[in-house]
Amino acid sequence: MNTKSNCPPPAKKLKPWTRMNPSELANNTSNPIRKIVDNIKMPSNANKEIIRLSLGDPTVFGNLNCPDVLTETIVKNVRSIKHNGYIHSAGTEVARDAIAKCYGNPVTHPLTRDDIIIASGGSGALDIAITGLLNPGDNLLLPKPAFALYQVICDAHKIETRYYDLLPERNWEADLVQMASLIDDRTRAILVNNPSNPCGSVYSKEHLKAILQVAENYRIPIIADEIYGDMTYGDSVFYPMASLTTTVPVISCSGLAKLFAVPGWRVGWIAVHDRNNILADIRAAYFKLSTLILGANSLVQSAIPAILTPVKGSAEEKSLAAFKKQYYSILDANAQFTLEKLRKIRGLKVVVPQGAMYVMCGIDTSILRDVKDDLDFTQKLLDEESVLVLPGQCFGVDNYFRVVFSAPQEKLGEAYDRIASFCQRHSK
Amino acid sequence: MNTKSNCPPPAKKLKPWTRMNPSELANNTSNPIRKIVDNIKMPSNANKEIIRLSLGDPTVFGNLNCPDVLTETIVKNVRSIKHNGYIHSAGTEVARDAIAKCYGNPVTHPLTRDDIIIASGGSGALDIAITGLLNPGDNLLLPKPAFALYQVICDAHKIETRYYDLLPERNWEADLVQMASLIDDRTRAILVNNPSNPCGSVYSKEHLKAILQVAENYRIPIIADEIYGDMTYGDSVFYPMASLTTTVPVISCSGLAKLFAVPGWRVGWIAVHDRNNILADIRAAYFKLSTLILGANSLVQSAIPAILTPVKGSAEEKSLAAFKKQYYSILDANAQFTLEKLRKIRGLKVVVPQGAMYVMCGIDTSILRDVKDDLDFTQKLLDEESVLVLPGQCFGVDNYFRVVFSAPQEKLGEAYDRIASFCQRHSK
Repeated sequence: MNTKSNCPPPAKKLKPWTRMNPSELANNTSNPIRKIVDNIKMPSNANKEIIRLSLGDPTVFGNLNCPDVLTETIVKNVRSIKHNGYIHSAGTEVARDAIAKCYGNPVTHPLTRDDIIIASGGSGALDIAITGLLNPGDNLLLPKPAFALYQVICDAHKIETRYYDLLPERNWEADLVQMASLIDDRTRAILVNNPSNPCGSVYSKEHLKAILQVAENYRIPIIADEIYGDMTYGDSVFYPMASLTTTVPVISCSGLAKLFAVPGWRVGWIAVHDRNNILADIRAAYFKLSTLILGANSLVQSAIPAILTPVKGSAEEKSLAAFKKQYYSILDANAQFTLEKLRKIRGLKVVVPQGAMYVMCGIDTSILRDVKDDLDFTQKLLDEESVLVLPGQCFGVDNYFRVVFSAPQEKLGEAYDRIASFCQRHSK
Repeated sequence: MNTKSNCPPPAKKLKPWTRMNPSELANNTSNPIRKIVDNIKMPSNANKEIIRLSLGDPTVFGNLNCPDVLTETIVKNVRSIKHNGYIHSAGTEVARDAIAKCYGNPVTHPLTRDDIIIASGGSGALDIAITGLLNPGDNLLLPKPAFALYQVICDAHKIETRYYDLLPERNWEADLVQMASLIDDRTRAILVNNPSNPCGSVYSKEHLKAILQVAENYRIPIIADEIYGDMTYGDSVFYPMASLTTTVPVISCSGLAKLFAVPGWRVGWIAVHDRNNILADIRAAYFKLSTLILGANSLVQSAIPAILTPVKGSAEEKSLAAFKKQYYSILDANAQFTLEKLRKIRGLKVVVPQGAMYVMCGIDTSILRDVKDDLDFTQKLLDEESVLVLPGQCFGVDNYFRVVFSAPQEKLGEAYDRIASFCQRHSK
């Protein structure tokens, strides 16, 4: 073969190699939690074991395990060698059928597989839900305090964010007057996170209907981040937003992460609850966006029907029911334990946790000495007591900290005792 | 609680709900393969079994299975309940260590875990590799014919694509004169796919060095899609591009999909082979982009060390070596079989396959009657012989078709006999 005739031409311009700049997309991708957490210094000579109540991951301490049915379905399916190939970019039909059956209701909020887009985790679902609907310059209403990823996705894509306050004195209900005041003609959706991370709140039917009324009045669809689903405690009940409206389109995001204790498995989905065909093109857009990276893994998707739609009366169904009962009762007990322990501490103001696995504690800096703010509280608590919590600033609010209460109770008790000692020592 | 004081205000403007428009990102996301394939009509009354040689997935026919070591590592790890939690957004350290060790070389192209970003499949890796480097309006040089996803990603992000021809008469080597002529000051990378999908070509060391010389002359980094790695046949040898240069930065994308027969598992990665710190900020940008959707599943990542860096002399290492030998020898035999069968058919011009699992066949429409072009050939072959191949237009070239030769040989033989009958019947 004559390679000479295909050799490269002489260079037209010889310049030096220079360090390359990333794209704007990458430059705009920045997690505010990281910036804050990276500045928290781990104690160099802690004489106590560090207790981390910071990460929203139920698997950290080994006390909360995924259901056996899930594990053994994966074992069976990986050995079958039948779940290794390419699947539909938005997920297999059987997995989407199972999600539609489990999360839809034929009367109040029907779903079919054509409404379901499976994605790489709850994050992937939110990414598609937001970027398929909003253009740069459009705006999205977000709760404050909130999970940071909403902001990260919007910033990356130059989507404007506008924050409506959640009111601690109302158990973190949304300030609806303010919410409505933020809406303009570039507002494309209201994001509602219920149960809430970081608040641990669960909204009443009435409050959800009031939010839907705002959406109805302004003709704005809802993006409902419902990843914590029915993880609720005490008398709190979870109502899917889509079940409470016949007119407002609801784009619901959820996944296996928290409900089945497998956040690393990256199985999330969007359920498009359309009303009167308003979202027909948006649904199609979500399917198109799913082709870019081909969502969740075929192997873990293969286990979705077994855990979401077990055969009625089967051993698997009973096993899953027992798993759920135990899992939720541990978290419920931890929520009550947390409330009892923390509400006794002078200098803290605890908002009653109702769901998810979080509680937000207000810090009364007028009572606590040498505590400037939540960041200062977090760092000093870590330095002096080796307990790590996340400062409210990670979620957009000052003078709160978030506790993840999924750890075993003896670990929680130890941590709360240390927080009590800390607050007592810093009491004015 | 007084909910009255927090009720929604009266609507300022009452307009009807209207059908919503998707974002530009979604509108710009469109796979050219889909548009073409969706227009291919399946025969309504085929009297022969349909043989699909269209999908680039080695698992389709059940004759090529992933290694037992991989399956059993997943079984062990899923039962350990230790791989269910959140992991680093760019992948676990042990998985990135294993990839760095397996795909780097301390002398010619060193890698550490800090150069590795694990993503959701090869597609996710390409998405990050391209969008972290190029802005809207920048341009990327792409081969023609090529895997359609490059174009899909670029279109979605308004990145311009410029195509350099691959020359069938040179076994699909790149036209370097033309490649160089496409470069301007908005050219940010040259994408090289070796071994090639759809061509099945494997470039010589000399040709890869010639491409690197173009990159060197114009100071343009390479994005190397090396997902087919060392899947080569006959005398062909795979050279990682990064091993052939000490000055040109190479962003190499690969994954488990093809090399271990698990395309549905979505495990891909970027290996950043920097030179003189030119890519320092790009590498950091890739890590940032990985935070948006949190790459590949924790469970499948947990198996990466076992298959990429087995203990020397262990049973696992021997088992993996046996798997690879068998897997590649089946594909090698299929490549030879394919070449022998297809090159005898009058009206076709077969380019010798050297790697991956593809062969491109030229269609001589001057010899074949009633065959307008590749699309017409594909549809008529399907109608008359129930064999499905992909027309070259799916990859940007006319009058070729791509055959995937991973099926069992008896299936391939049957398909090739039918193609021969078809061409004979349509012979002028």
